[in-house]
Amino acid sequence: MAPAKRSAKPAAGTVPLRKRASLQRSKKPTSKSTIDKSTIDLGLLNGRLGYFVRRAQVWIFQDFIRRLASIDISPAQFSVLVVADANRGLSQAELAATLGIERARLVRLLHRLEQRGLIQRLPSSADGRRHALQLTRDGQRVVARAKALSDQHEAGLMKRLGPERYQLTLETFREF
Amino acid sequence: MAPAKRSAKPAAGTVPLRKRASLQRSKKPTSKSTIDKSTIDLGLLNGRLGYFVRRAQVWIFQDFIRRLASIDISPAQFSVLVVADANRGLSQAELAATLGIERARLVRLLHRLEQRGLIQRLPSSADGRRHALQLTRDGQRVVARAKALSDQHEAGLMKRLGPERYQLTLETFREF
Repeated sequence: MAPAKRSAKPAAGTVPLRKRASLQRSKKPTSKSTIDKSTIDLGLLNGRLGYFVRRAQVWIFQDFIRRLASIDISPAQFSVLVVADANRGLSQAELAATLGIERARLVRLLHRLEQRGLIQRLPSSADGRRHALQLTRDGQRVVARAKALSDQHEAGLMKRLGPERYQLTLETFREF
Repeated sequence: MAPAKRSAKPAAGTVPLRKRASLQRSKKPTSKSTIDKSTIDLGLLNGRLGYFVRRAQVWIFQDFIRRLASIDISPAQFSVLVVADANRGLSQAELAATLGIERARLVRLLHRLEQRGLIQRLPSSADGRRHALQLTRDGQRVVARAKALSDQHEAGLMKRLGPERYQLTLETFREF
């Protein structure tokens, strides 16, 4: 590999923390890959919140998927089941707006959950076309198991971040 | 809509902040949607970091895409260009490992950037099959413009979070 340049400037207004970050990185268990990532310069990405939020989000979702592998529930399916469970008779439009999911994607998600016998789409009493959502008995069982497994996922996250930083991060991102 | 249940318990070990969060939410500009999301209960999701990190990540990426719309550079393309720019002669394998991108997806990303004349894939001197990456002159111009536009995006994020929370969040997620 060509030697990495170390000249990239940090983003305007950010404190260059690369040195500290790389020291912290070296304490972690070595990657399985033979590629020495520590010699590769992230350049400007080192001062970009979006880059690190995306990496953290991918890590969190992968951990969630692993923890819930026995019941095969994805993070998006979990959101749908939990919110449908907490709001009986919710419409698809309300669910899409609440979770910020595109309608077409939500329709696919709901179709899959319906096929698995976890939810039912019923005509609403207020508007026959509204498709009020309801968990089946199987859906309620799965959501109870999913909540228990996701508690372990959440406890792992809290341990990883430390309780204080976990709470601070939760509060910060809730306001987004 | 059926009245929302308000009985969902917060996740183990988390402080219920729903009331405060909803007060803060009400200060923000009203959504264009006619759906009143404040009456819908997020249930257990209210104590789930992954849910809020994902929402924040989507928000951040959408803002990034808007800010760089004039040069049509996505967050993933930006990462590739910036890291390729900072590490001349980087291989595809090194880039994939550094950014945590799946090889197949990276190949598609690089193909698109090559088609646009922004990068070149050259045989490496060390290993003829390695496809060392290099920005073209056009690529360097685009990356310079992308950096300037993304500085504005980053400044907006810092303003939104406040400098202290911005810095704390950046440090927290860097260690992930």
